[in-house]
Amino acid sequence: MGSTSFNMVTLIRKKRDKQELSTDEIKYIISAYTRDEIPDYQVSSLLMAIFLNGLSDRESADLTYAMLHSGIVVDLSDVPGVKVDKHSTGGVGDKLSLILAPIVAACGVPVPMISGRGLGHSGGTLDKLESITGFNVNLNLTQYAEVLKKHNLVLIGQTEDIAPADKRMYALRDVTATVECIPLIAGSIMSKKLAEGIDALVLDVKCGSGAFMKTPENALKLAEKLVSIGESFGKRTIGYVTNMDQPLGTTVGNWLEVRESAEALQGHGEADMMEVTLMLSGTMIYLGGKATSVEEGIAMSKASIKDGSAFQKLIDIVDEQGGNSDYLRNPATYPQSGHIYDVQSLSDGYITSMDSYEIGMTAVELGAGRIRKEDTIDPTAGIEFLRKVGDSVEKGETIARIHTNNKNIISASVERLLAAITIQADKPRPLAMITHRVDADGVHEL
Amino acid sequence: MGSTSFNMVTLIRKKRDKQELSTDEIKYIISAYTRDEIPDYQVSSLLMAIFLNGLSDRESADLTYAMLHSGIVVDLSDVPGVKVDKHSTGGVGDKLSLILAPIVAACGVPVPMISGRGLGHSGGTLDKLESITGFNVNLNLTQYAEVLKKHNLVLIGQTEDIAPADKRMYALRDVTATVECIPLIAGSIMSKKLAEGIDALVLDVKCGSGAFMKTPENALKLAEKLVSIGESFGKRTIGYVTNMDQPLGTTVGNWLEVRESAEALQGHGEADMMEVTLMLSGTMIYLGGKATSVEEGIAMSKASIKDGSAFQKLIDIVDEQGGNSDYLRNPATYPQSGHIYDVQSLSDGYITSMDSYEIGMTAVELGAGRIRKEDTIDPTAGIEFLRKVGDSVEKGETIARIHTNNKNIISASVERLLAAITIQADKPRPLAMITHRVDADGVHEL
Repeated sequence: MGSTSFNMVTLIRKKRDKQELSTDEIKYIISAYTRDEIPDYQVSSLLMAIFLNGLSDRESADLTYAMLHSGIVVDLSDVPGVKVDKHSTGGVGDKLSLILAPIVAACGVPVPMISGRGLGHSGGTLDKLESITGFNVNLNLTQYAEVLKKHNLVLIGQTEDIAPADKRMYALRDVTATVECIPLIAGSIMSKKLAEGIDALVLDVKCGSGAFMKTPENALKLAEKLVSIGESFGKRTIGYVTNMDQPLGTTVGNWLEVRESAEALQGHGEADMMEVTLMLSGTMIYLGGKATSVEEGIAMSKASIKDGSAFQKLIDIVDEQGGNSDYLRNPATYPQSGHIYDVQSLSDGYITSMDSYEIGMTAVELGAGRIRKEDTIDPTAGIEFLRKVGDSVEKGETIARIHTNNKNIISASVERLLAAITIQADKPRPLAMITHRVDADGVHEL
Repeated sequence: MGSTSFNMVTLIRKKRDKQELSTDEIKYIISAYTRDEIPDYQVSSLLMAIFLNGLSDRESADLTYAMLHSGIVVDLSDVPGVKVDKHSTGGVGDKLSLILAPIVAACGVPVPMISGRGLGHSGGTLDKLESITGFNVNLNLTQYAEVLKKHNLVLIGQTEDIAPADKRMYALRDVTATVECIPLIAGSIMSKKLAEGIDALVLDVKCGSGAFMKTPENALKLAEKLVSIGESFGKRTIGYVTNMDQPLGTTVGNWLEVRESAEALQGHGEADMMEVTLMLSGTMIYLGGKATSVEEGIAMSKASIKDGSAFQKLIDIVDEQGGNSDYLRNPATYPQSGHIYDVQSLSDGYITSMDSYEIGMTAVELGAGRIRKEDTIDPTAGIEFLRKVGDSVEKGETIARIHTNNKNIISASVERLLAAITIQADKPRPLAMITHRVDADGVHEL
């Protein structure tokens, strides 16, 4: 055995006993596991020790580095400008990428965006893009750089070459109850994001019933870990903890969300959703060096909506990547679900909460998502909300509309949806949409 | 899937989150793992969660039950009397089984003893027995019961039928850094012991430099867990925490220890060693219902040495199981190692400590033990001690004698042995040989 070989039992024991693993030890584990030289049963034992005993910021950065370099790291130095992307930890109705990416690109900041698919209750940008007939998310890395250079924007899916160690490790975590672990989540996210060739990153850490992180404490911990890793790679990284206690915007479902995004880019976005979108886009423009403050970035974002340049950017990129942009200009021409069903309130009062997880799962049942990776998606399926938290409703009033091609699921879905929406006599306090900002200087309450 | 099937990820998550696993869940894990229906990587993840989050007494008992019933549980109801065995957690020079088993059997209590082999620094009763030329430890379970009935004593090795789940689990723990875990150790020990067909059990939990448990806290925790499991099976169980800060008796090495045991049974046992031996044998006789107190059991033990019945019992069982008992009557006729080398003190003073782990490993190097399971043993190899902790020594005086057939190891062994023995100017306090007794009523300091 060479000098870079370690005894895996000794390494597991170290982490088990709350000691730190060295940089070389972490490199060894990841590269040997990727080369099939360490069995799954040793890695899963280590993963559980990491789950329960944690990783220091230094160890998290080393893990990210090792997973990042298990595959290709895209070199975008040929593309002028400070490349900035945004990553969201996933939510229900989370279409923000579709709105902010064109805004930021229209403001002159290159956005190289590699997205994932939805799984379980939370949606994925890739599925939404593919609901635009013809849109090709499978560009190779040369095309990726060319499209970015031409449009300041490119929207693709993860290739096999990016962070293969993460892919393998994630599959093992999935079957060994080691998924919900902040340093492992952070390493997984950052190894994929850093492979895109970005210079800076904005993070949207969702918190609430529809998010992976249910509590502000955990959301903040994850945000801090992500920012710490990003900064340790010399990438300016700013994270926000944002609300996921009700679906974002007024729609859940792939085409429904694309349509809502196109409307938002034409000035008709729901206020809560736009508050988050503009904070993220403003921060991206600031990190991209095109604004001297986040506030200026927000003002530029608003201007790009007003002057039509942001919506035009969306049209341009859809045209470039083979999608039919007519549907964005004339959404009414897009095929609809076979069944559109009004959901009526059972009582008078105010909507005081919406269980986003249950709503996300209802949308999945309607055909909008996947329970298993191999499930297929119905792009037209989903839910429209006519009322949200804080709105008053009357008994019999339509509060939501479900779209599906599966007639048999309708009554169960209506029931599940109504059970997820709480109606009470007193008007609730408005939800705070953005609670914290985390950057290199620490945590700031907002 | 039937009603006794569970989702393994859910079970791992429970233990990860410090919840208790139910009896049915533990049964499922063990039986499905034994049937190859759960992959190693899930079990190793669970083992690490158990290592770090522990098992309740109820869970430990359930785990023991499940592992016990993965194989044959011997039925000794045909053999009259209360069957009692002793288990030691392993030490250096620990030949107590060879001395106390004949004593207890001679006092009328049946002792069905299934022993293991040595590994690493600690020896095993089976290896010691096999140094008696011809001794057969491989009886089948019918012969096992017959010999026990005839002699109140039988000494065999573990068969493949006993607790196969433990065997499999232990192999996995060995490569995933989950060995040193009190509830898992306790489950492993007790599942094998309860399979013997015993009615009661005495435990000798060693504590100190030559023991698996280095601290009194851990030794006590293990003793409590073992007693709790034994009692939950309705078997009266008494445990002692005993000293392993120097080798037991005056010899380390297989035949050397058999010879010392034969001498002890003829009234010439070292005082410290006999203190522990008699406490254990007295307790076994008490639990076996042949004495009304441990003290009376100790008095009976001493009488069985004095009247020769204990030594005769050893001769009888060796004859029964095919060993050459002449060697026990005339130890000088047994072949000696090719090299016997005196080890002389380098200074004047008192021996204040002896690192038993180092001494055990020195004996292994001389040929007396195994580093890997497949290593072969030299029955004649080992170490005799002429001086022990508390004894005064003079520079140049012989304090130990090494026996080996491997000439090349001698100088390194002498060096290692001398380094393991600390000599200082002041006479040390005597070592307390037995510090705690643990029974159904709790912990008693001695």
